[in-house]
Amino acid sequence: MFGSFSLSVSAFRLPFITPYHYGCTRNAPRESRRRNARLLHKSGSGHGMLSVAGPFSLTALLCGLLTLLPSATVCGANENGNAQYVDPFIGTEGGGNVFPGVCVPFGMVKLGPDCGNMEWNAGWAPDGNIHGFSHTHVSGTGGGCKYGNILMLPMTGVIDLSDYSSPRENEQASVGEYSVELTRYGTSARLTAVDRAALHEYTFPAATDSRILFDMGSCLALKMCETQKVIGSEVRILSPTELEGYTRVRGGWNEGEAYTVYFHAETDTPAESFGTWKDGKTEPGKESQFDSGQKTGAYMTFNTTEGQKIRVRVGISYISCGRARANMRQVDTWDLDKVKAEATAKWNRVLDKVELDGDKNDKVKFYTALYHCYLQPTDKTGENPKWTSAEPNYDDFYAIWDTFRATHPLFTILTPSRQAYMLRALIDIWRNDGYMPDARSGNDNGRVQGGSNCDILFADAIVKGVEGVDYEAGLQAMLKNAEVPPGGDERKEGRGGLDDYNTLGYVSAATERCLTRTLEYSNCDFTIATVANRLGKNDIADRYYRKASNWQNTWNDDIECLGHKGFAWPRERDGSFLAEDKYTVLTGGGWENPTYETFSFELSMYVPHDMKSLIARCGGQERFTQRLDTFFTHNNGDQRWLIGMYQIANEPGFLAPALYNYVNRQDKTARLVRYILANRYKATRDGIPGNDDSGSMSAWYVFHSLGFYPNAGQDVYLISSPVFRKATLHLENGRTLRITARNNSDRNIYVQSVRLNEKPLGNNWFRHSDIKDGGTLEFVMGPEPSGWSRNGVLPPSMSDTTK
Amino acid sequence: MFGSFSLSVSAFRLPFITPYHYGCTRNAPRESRRRNARLLHKSGSGHGMLSVAGPFSLTALLCGLLTLLPSATVCGANENGNAQYVDPFIGTEGGGNVFPGVCVPFGMVKLGPDCGNMEWNAGWAPDGNIHGFSHTHVSGTGGGCKYGNILMLPMTGVIDLSDYSSPRENEQASVGEYSVELTRYGTSARLTAVDRAALHEYTFPAATDSRILFDMGSCLALKMCETQKVIGSEVRILSPTELEGYTRVRGGWNEGEAYTVYFHAETDTPAESFGTWKDGKTEPGKESQFDSGQKTGAYMTFNTTEGQKIRVRVGISYISCGRARANMRQVDTWDLDKVKAEATAKWNRVLDKVELDGDKNDKVKFYTALYHCYLQPTDKTGENPKWTSAEPNYDDFYAIWDTFRATHPLFTILTPSRQAYMLRALIDIWRNDGYMPDARSGNDNGRVQGGSNCDILFADAIVKGVEGVDYEAGLQAMLKNAEVPPGGDERKEGRGGLDDYNTLGYVSAATERCLTRTLEYSNCDFTIATVANRLGKNDIADRYYRKASNWQNTWNDDIECLGHKGFAWPRERDGSFLAEDKYTVLTGGGWENPTYETFSFELSMYVPHDMKSLIARCGGQERFTQRLDTFFTHNNGDQRWLIGMYQIANEPGFLAPALYNYVNRQDKTARLVRYILANRYKATRDGIPGNDDSGSMSAWYVFHSLGFYPNAGQDVYLISSPVFRKATLHLENGRTLRITARNNSDRNIYVQSVRLNEKPLGNNWFRHSDIKDGGTLEFVMGPEPSGWSRNGVLPPSMSDTTK
Repeated sequence: MFGSFSLSVSAFRLPFITPYHYGCTRNAPRESRRRNARLLHKSGSGHGMLSVAGPFSLTALLCGLLTLLPSATVCGANENGNAQYVDPFIGTEGGGNVFPGVCVPFGMVKLGPDCGNMEWNAGWAPDGNIHGFSHTHVSGTGGGCKYGNILMLPMTGVIDLSDYSSPRENEQASVGEYSVELTRYGTSARLTAVDRAALHEYTFPAATDSRILFDMGSCLALKMCETQKVIGSEVRILSPTELEGYTRVRGGWNEGEAYTVYFHAETDTPAESFGTWKDGKTEPGKESQFDSGQKTGAYMTFNTTEGQKIRVRVGISYISCGRARANMRQVDTWDLDKVKAEATAKWNRVLDKVELDGDKNDKVKFYTALYHCYLQPTDKTGENPKWTSAEPNYDDFYAIWDTFRATHPLFTILTPSRQAYMLRALIDIWRNDGYMPDARSGNDNGRVQGGSNCDILFADAIVKGVEGVDYEAGLQAMLKNAEVPPGGDERKEGRGGLDDYNTLGYVSAATERCLTRTLEYSNCDFTIATVANRLGKNDIADRYYRKASNWQNTWNDDIECLGHKGFAWPRERDGSFLAEDKYTVLTGGGWENPTYETFSFELSMYVPHDMKSLIARCGGQERFTQRLDTFFTHNNGDQRWLIGMYQIANEPGFLAPALYNYVNRQDKTARLVRYILANRYKATRDGIPGNDDSGSMSAWYVFHSLGFYPNAGQDVYLISSPVFRKATLHLENGRTLRITARNNSDRNIYVQSVRLNEKPLGNNWFRHSDIKDGGTLEFVMGPEPSGWSRNGVLPPSMSDTTK
Repeated sequence: MFGSFSLSVSAFRLPFITPYHYGCTRNAPRESRRRNARLLHKSGSGHGMLSVAGPFSLTALLCGLLTLLPSATVCGANENGNAQYVDPFIGTEGGGNVFPGVCVPFGMVKLGPDCGNMEWNAGWAPDGNIHGFSHTHVSGTGGGCKYGNILMLPMTGVIDLSDYSSPRENEQASVGEYSVELTRYGTSARLTAVDRAALHEYTFPAATDSRILFDMGSCLALKMCETQKVIGSEVRILSPTELEGYTRVRGGWNEGEAYTVYFHAETDTPAESFGTWKDGKTEPGKESQFDSGQKTGAYMTFNTTEGQKIRVRVGISYISCGRARANMRQVDTWDLDKVKAEATAKWNRVLDKVELDGDKNDKVKFYTALYHCYLQPTDKTGENPKWTSAEPNYDDFYAIWDTFRATHPLFTILTPSRQAYMLRALIDIWRNDGYMPDARSGNDNGRVQGGSNCDILFADAIVKGVEGVDYEAGLQAMLKNAEVPPGGDERKEGRGGLDDYNTLGYVSAATERCLTRTLEYSNCDFTIATVANRLGKNDIADRYYRKASNWQNTWNDDIECLGHKGFAWPRERDGSFLAEDKYTVLTGGGWENPTYETFSFELSMYVPHDMKSLIARCGGQERFTQRLDTFFTHNNGDQRWLIGMYQIANEPGFLAPALYNYVNRQDKTARLVRYILANRYKATRDGIPGNDDSGSMSAWYVFHSLGFYPNAGQDVYLISSPVFRKATLHLENGRTLRITARNNSDRNIYVQSVRLNEKPLGNNWFRHSDIKDGGTLEFVMGPEPSGWSRNGVLPPSMSDTTK
C-alpha cells in the first residue's frame, strides 16, 4: 500500500521545522488559483458576496480557499469602493465601544490593540498604554469583557512580565489596516487580517534584543463583575520561525463556559533565540510550557538593524493548533498590502451593495454604520468544538435582543442568504445545545436580556421569504422557548419566569425584569403564531395569537403619569398590582428591575405587533399621539443623548420614533428621525449614541437614513425620512432597488409625496414584497409637513386580522 | 535577564525530537526520589493511602510525583498483598460489565481492549475480535457506552482501516497487567498503567512492516441510543519515537457535551517510517492530520526480528497534549514489571486495609469486590478543562444513585479522606457548573436516575464525622437541588418535576418516574434536614423534616396486591389517584415509567429514613413482615437473579433484605443475605448479579460479607451475617476494627449473640461512632435463628425524634 517507505532516523525529516516555503505541494498552481478565484467571484455575485463561507462550501473553504486564495488576485475588488468612506474609529469613544481593529465581514480574526486597564470591551481605549495586539474581539458591547486572546507585542530589551505595555503614537486605522508606534520600545506595527488569519508587520530599531512576545495568559477582563479568567494555557516553540499554543478562558459578559483559542504563528525571519514563561517565571531557551492552569507565554528574539521589518502570520482556531496552522495559510504572502487589499475587497463587496448620492460626511456616517453591522456575529463554521454538523456555525450573537430590531432585517434585505445561514446556525444550536440563544459568545449561550427574541428572526425571515431555512424545525425551537422553562440559570437561555407567564398570563412581580419579559414574550408569541400560521399549523397559531395579548394582563389602567393613564405595572402572583407607592413608571433599567434598559413609560409603548390594541387601551389615537409627544419632549434637559425621555442609546426605544406612523402622524416621525440622524449620530469617535451593540445602533442609522425602518417580525417598513438624494441597493437576486428623494436637504425633511414602483403611495408604510425584487421608491421632500399619508391606511396590527 | 542566548538556525535544537532519555534534568537524583517515596508512604499510612492524589498535594503531584516517582522504589508495596486474590475477569460477563483492564485506584488511565461490535460498556467483550487497546473506560455500567479513547494496536502488514481487528488467544489479566495474543498479526501485548500514564509492551514477529497503530477516531458507541460520536481528532508525528494528538467525543450514556482526550506517546525504538490517515485515506509519510471534524490516526512502522519487543509509554490528559506529555512521565522506565509492581503496590495499599481469615474462594470474591469499588469515580484533579480551582476534581460519578447506597459509605469507613475529596469535588461542580451531579462523566453532568442523591452523601458524611468538607456550602448545593428546577433537560441534573413536588407535595402522574422521584425526594429532603440540623439551622431542618414525609402524599391505601394493602401509586395534579386499571404495582422500570429500575411493590418499601411510619402505614410490624415475606418468596420462578420478586441486580432493592431488622426479624435478614452472598455472587466471569454499576453491587457484597450494611445518610449499620471467621479493618486514623464470627460456617449463618466493643449488643444495629475509632465486633453464629435481638430497640426512624 505504501511500500518500503523507510528512512534512517537521522533523515527522518519533519516538515514542521522546515521554514515556511511558498511553493508547498498543498498549494495549487497559479492557474487553478485564478480559476477558483473567478468561481468564487461568480458565486459571490450570484448568491451573496458572503456565500463562499457558507456551509455548502465548507469543503472548498478548507481544502481550497483557505490555503489557495491568492491575495494577489483580489476577487471583485473595487479599488475605489465604499470602504474608502469607512472610519473605523467612529463610535470607539463615548461608550460606543466599537472595535477599530482589522477584520473581514463576520471574520473570526478581529485583530486589534488591548489597552489601558484591559477593561475596555473592544480592547481599544482612547488613552492608556497598549499591551499588545490580540486576535479576538467583539464590537460595540457593554458589560463584562469577552475575548482579547492570543496577544502579541513587538518590543526590545528585558521583558517585564508585570507590565510590558507601551505608550503609543501615530495610531491609524482604515478598512483592512491598523497601525501604531510603540514609543517605549521604538517599534511600530502594521496589522491586517483575513477571515481566520492575521498578518503582523513589525518594524524594529537596531537592537540585539528585539523581540516578539506571545502572551497566552492575557485576556480582557472587567474586574468588578462578569469577569473573564484565563484557566489554562500552553505554548510551544516548534522551530526558529514557528510556534503554537492556546489560551483557555472562562466567564466574561455572558458568564459562558470555558472556550479555547488556539494559534499557530510563523515569522518570515528566523529567531536568534527564544524563551517561554509560566506563572511569571521566564525561562530562556525552554521550548515549551505545558498547561498546569497558569499563564504561559513565549518570545522570540532577533538581532535587528534599524528599521528592519519582521512579519508574522498567525492562524487562530477554536478547535486545535493543527487547525490554526491550516487556517494560518489563508495568509499566503508576506506582503501586507496584498492581504490588506484582499480584506478591503471583501468589505467592498458588502459596502458596494449600496450606492449613495449625497454629502460626503453623510456617506462616512452611512458606510461606517454599514461596516459596523457586518462585524458580527462571527462566522465560525467548521470551528465548533462542541458538535459537528453540516450546518453553519455562528457565534457572538451579542445579543439578538439588540440585533433583531434592525441589524438582522438589514441582512435580510442586503444579504438574505447570510441571514438564512444564521437562522440555520440558531436551529443547530437548539438541536445540539438545547435552546436557541438570545446571546451567545465563546461557543456558549447567555445572557438573555428580555424575551426569546431569536423567535422574531424566524417570523421576520418567513414573512419576507428568506429561503433555505427549515422553518418547521425553527418553530419547534421557538416552541421550546415558549413552553419549557430553562431552569437553573434563567439568564442563560429560554424564558425566565415562564411558569408564571404560562399559568398567570404574566410574569409576576417577584421575578426580575417582569414587565420587560411579559411585554416581550407577548411579541415573541405573536411571532410564533406568525410562523405557525405560515406553516399551516392553525391550532398553534391560534393559541399563540391569544398569548400575544398577554401584555394586557400587566396593564394597570389606574396608573397616571404626566397626564397619561394606563401603564404596564408589576403584578403579584395573586393577581393584585404592586401598590402605587412601590413603583414608578419613570425609572428602571437594571437586570433586577421590572424593566430592562428601559422604564415603564417607554416600555408601555412596546407592543409592536398590535399597536391598534395598545392605542385603544391608551385612549385612542389622539391620546396616544399626546403620549408620544410627552415622551419625546418632557424633561428635555441636559442629559446627553435624551430627547425628552427618549434615549436612543438603548434598544427598547428603537421603534418609538416611528410609532407616530401608527397614528398617521408620519410628519412627526420624519422630524424626530432626521433630528436624531443629524444630531445624535456623528462622524466622530464619540459619534454613536450608546453602545453600538454589535452594530445595532448603526443598523438603526442605516435604515432610517434610507428612509424607512422595519417593524421586526412583520413584513412592514415604516416610512421615515431619507437622508440621501439617491440610494441604489444591489440586491442578492440581481435586482436593484432605487430610492430617490427630490428636493431633499437638511431643511426639506418632510415627505410631500411618495411613489412606490411608479404608483402613488398614500400610506406611511409598505411591505417587503414591494421591494424584494427591486423597484423604485421616490420621495418628494419639503420644508413643512404636507399632510401626506394623514388619511392613509394605518400599518397593520394583529387585531386587524385575528378574532 | 537571559543574556546573549543565541543559536544558529541549524543548531536550534528541539528537545521534542530528542529520543527519550532517562537522566533528563527534570528528574531528581535517586536519593531525593527515595525520600519522596518514603514521605509518600508515610502520608499514605497516616491519612489514607490515597491522600497523595488529593488537592493539597497537587503541586507535589505535578512537580514531583508524576515525573519523579521511580517505579523501582515501590512505596509500601506488599509483594504478597491481597491483590493476589483479585481476578479482574470476575463480573465481566453476564451483564456485570466490569472493566478487566489495568488501572490504579480511581486512576484516570483505564487501559484495556475494545472488542467485538464496540458496544460493550467496559470495552472488553467475552468474544469477538480485539480492535485495539484504548486508555479510558468505565466499569460495570449499563446503557450507552462512554469513553474507549486513544486506541493502539500492534500489527503487521497493510492497514485495513475498515477492519483491522484481530482474534485473540491467551488473554490474561491480573492486578496491574493485561496480556493477550493477536492471532491475525502474530503479535502480542502486555499492558500496565499508573494513574495518568500507560506502558504497552508489544511483541512482533520477524517483519519489515511491523506497525503500531494509533486510532484517534475510535470510541465505544452503543448505536441504538445514547450514542458516543467522535466529533474531531488530530494527530501529529513529532519524531521517530514521539507522537501526540487527541480525540474529541460527544454524547454517550449521560448524553454529555463534548470532551477531549489528549495523548502523548513515546516508543523505546525509533520507527523506520510512519504515516497518518484522515477520513479513511492513508497517507504514508504525512506527519500530521489537522482536525476538520473527521477521524484521524497514525502508524509507526518497524523492521522487527522474531520476538522483538517494542514498548510505548503513553500519557493522557483532558487538558492538552503538553499536559499529556507531562503525565506520560509517570512511567519512567521501559521495564513493564517495575511499573506493574508500582500499580500493584497502589492496589495493595487499598486491599490490605482489610485482612480476612476465611475460605480462599470467599477471599477472591471479597477482594475482587473491594477492587471494583475503587475503580471509580475517576480522580481528574488538575485535569479540569472547564474551570480552575484549588479543589479536587472527580469525574465518572456513574451514578451516585447507584453508589450512594454502599460504595460511598464504604469509602467513609476505609478512606474517609478520599470521601471528603469527593464531596469537595461535588461542591466545586455545583459552584462552577450549577448543580451537583447525580451522574457525571466526560466532565459533564447527566443523567439523573431518581432523586438528587448526592444530598445523601453529605448527610452520610456529616453524621459519620467526615472532616474537611465545607458542609455549609454543601447545604447550599443541596438546597439548590431541592428548590431550583433544573429546566430544559430534567434528566441532566437537579430534580425533575420539582414544581409539582414543591407545590403539590408529590410529583404528579404526568411526569416520568413520578413515584421514584417522590419517594427519593422525600429521603433526600430528610438528608437536607439532617445536615441543616447538624449545622444548627433549625428552620431549614424543620421545613425539610416535614417534606421528608411527602412520600405519604403518593400513598394509595386502597390498592391491594397479593394480600397487602397500600402502595405508592401515581397521582394526578388535581389530587386524584390514577384509575386502578391504568397501573399495576408489579411492573415498571424504564426512564418513562412511574418507577425507575423497580416497581411499586418494591419501591413502596423504600422509606429508609422513616421505616417506622412506613410500617405503621402498612398495618404494623406483623403485616409488614408478611409483606417482606411475600416480596422475597412470591414468584420465585426461573428468572435468574430473582428471589421472589426481589432482584438484587437493581439498586432500589439494595436495602430491602435488611429491612427485616426494622421489624426485629434479623434472622430473616441473615438468611437472605447469606443466601445471596453465597449464590448470587460467584468467583466467575458472570459472578455479579447485574451491572456492577461502578462497584455498587460489589460494595453490597463487601458490606454484608463483613456482617453489616449501611442505611446511607444515617449513622446506622444494620447487622446481617458475616462471611468470614475474622476480618480486621485498618482504619485511616490508625485504629483497628476487629470483626470475629465464632462457629461461622455455611450452615451456621444465624447470629446467636453479638458483643460490640466488649459489651453485649441486644439490638440488630449499631452506629458509626461505635466503630470509627476501631474496636471489636464479636459474633457467635449458629445453625438456627436464636431469638437474638428479637426484643431489641429498633433501628432509628425519623418519626422517633421529630414532631
